[in-house]
Amino acid sequence: MGDGPDRGTGGVGGRPGSPGVGEGLDFARARSRIGGLAWKTPVVPLDLPGAPPVAMKLESLQRTGSFKVRGAANKLLALTPGERAGGVVAASSGNHGRAVAEVARRLGVPATVCVPDWVDPSKLRDIRAAAARVVSAGSSYDEAEERATDIAAKQGKPLVHPFDDLDVIEGQGTVGLEIVDQFPGVEEVVVPLSGGGLVAGIGYALKDRGVRIVAVSARRAAVMARSIGYGRPTRFPDERTVASALSGGIGLDNRFTFAACNEVVSSHVTVSERDIESAIRRAFRECRLVVEGGGAVGLAALWSGRYRPRGGAVLMVTGSNIDRLLLGSLLS
Amino acid sequence: MGDGPDRGTGGVGGRPGSPGVGEGLDFARARSRIGGLAWKTPVVPLDLPGAPPVAMKLESLQRTGSFKVRGAANKLLALTPGERAGGVVAASSGNHGRAVAEVARRLGVPATVCVPDWVDPSKLRDIRAAAARVVSAGSSYDEAEERATDIAAKQGKPLVHPFDDLDVIEGQGTVGLEIVDQFPGVEEVVVPLSGGGLVAGIGYALKDRGVRIVAVSARRAAVMARSIGYGRPTRFPDERTVASALSGGIGLDNRFTFAACNEVVSSHVTVSERDIESAIRRAFRECRLVVEGGGAVGLAALWSGRYRPRGGAVLMVTGSNIDRLLLGSLLS
Repeated sequence: MGDGPDRGTGGVGGRPGSPGVGEGLDFARARSRIGGLAWKTPVVPLDLPGAPPVAMKLESLQRTGSFKVRGAANKLLALTPGERAGGVVAASSGNHGRAVAEVARRLGVPATVCVPDWVDPSKLRDIRAAAARVVSAGSSYDEAEERATDIAAKQGKPLVHPFDDLDVIEGQGTVGLEIVDQFPGVEEVVVPLSGGGLVAGIGYALKDRGVRIVAVSARRAAVMARSIGYGRPTRFPDERTVASALSGGIGLDNRFTFAACNEVVSSHVTVSERDIESAIRRAFRECRLVVEGGGAVGLAALWSGRYRPRGGAVLMVTGSNIDRLLLGSLLS
Repeated sequence: MGDGPDRGTGGVGGRPGSPGVGEGLDFARARSRIGGLAWKTPVVPLDLPGAPPVAMKLESLQRTGSFKVRGAANKLLALTPGERAGGVVAASSGNHGRAVAEVARRLGVPATVCVPDWVDPSKLRDIRAAAARVVSAGSSYDEAEERATDIAAKQGKPLVHPFDDLDVIEGQGTVGLEIVDQFPGVEEVVVPLSGGGLVAGIGYALKDRGVRIVAVSARRAAVMARSIGYGRPTRFPDERTVASALSGGIGLDNRFTFAACNEVVSSHVTVSERDIESAIRRAFRECRLVVEGGGAVGLAALWSGRYRPRGGAVLMVTGSNIDRLLLGSLLS
């Protein structure tokens, strides 16, 4: 377990990755800490004849349009006012950047967000709208991350990592506490998998309740799943995917989420571009929900038949920040 | 008070309209009765700097995409199995018809729905999808209603009125009980006004709690508001409006909702077509909500500045069944 927690010190802080990453995380404390910044989001039923009860947890209706505000809020509030006063830095393919920008704005903290050049135009606009400084940093998420790390080091500012940070994981896990309140019979939670922050957070938050964690990857953004297959964090080139929020590496020096996903994931499902596009369409037509690709992979797994609920299940619908033109073309 | 309740007898049942229409309504009973058919819908906050806390009650995420399923379920379940076995009849500009069709399907009851010929194509499709028989009945809602009344009388089937029925009012009012659970400090509820069933239901459900009811009409579908101005139910020609769900008369022989609206409405706001279109657009862009015109009038009143919250307020967002092409054209 190393030499004890060093959280809240401003960097990509924490203990070395190992089984037991989740020890010491205090989700109840995080929930109370972020209460003024993140919303409790609704759980709504999904009509599914002949299946166990299935519901959706709509982080797509979260402030900023994705769950990322939970981790960002918990991270920034875990910093001392002095640590965050000079500003924070983040790398993001969109949702994390928008969340950091919005939380920083509400706390009166300057934010710099490094984005790869393929970021959704609507996400970029929203990051800018929260008065964050945006740095366009190359063609891959990894390049944006390197740039953010560089800026943070040179300017002595805390880096808010999108997933591989214990405070961020703890923040994302607060959604797990809400789920057990809102859907008491939950046996499975279906969670989009990218860097693994949300999977780790929910997994640890629900660890002692015997809830199965079903992780869903987009086939073109399956770095964590493939890394688990290889037995170590591995780098792959970014591929274009409609689930752009799930793109990006997990870091060859991954400290927490690789170990965490190995520990908490019960089963793994991979969905195709076609599954995801079809789920975006169906969510709109049947549920009147606006869901972005990365937020729709759980529904894609269900509706494609690649995932079948074995008990009361909650599907995480994690984001709604889809470009209007993309949504229009998918619906026409 | 006439000669006492004659509810549940199959027709457009009830006592003559008078102050006191709400006496005898049992919203807690209705809530428990419709629990298996209607969903408890979410209340989500609305970011509004400098205003009292404002939230939206998302009946747009209700089963069938509108609140109408509450009244339809309460009405059909108030009938005896014998009364409903031969089928039920309804007139509707869309949402009520879809709700009746869906509830009837789930109860194994045949349904006939009479619609005016300007009904939204997507609503028509959904009514048909629930296996209801659809009768296209002329160019106005009133003609559709006359046809439905005629079929009900000739075939001896119960007519499920969209608003002027105590069981329907009682069903719609269940949303009021949810609101006080979900937003305990509520001081105002902002409710779209058409035939007045929802306004009456919520008004009576919250009558003893000192909650103000703010009714919002679309300028081109303001029959109830204008009738209140005239002091009696009055007929006006249908006008085309983006809030098509609010179109239609209130009936010259209105029995309950005219008196109820006179009794429970604290203040009244009217919004323009432009206000409504702008609210549909803004709900999509800022809140990632799909809202139809009739469901958006509360947001239109708020965002146009025609309504200003004087305390903790819940805005009813009543429906999401907007035609895909119409939404697309509003967003482009």
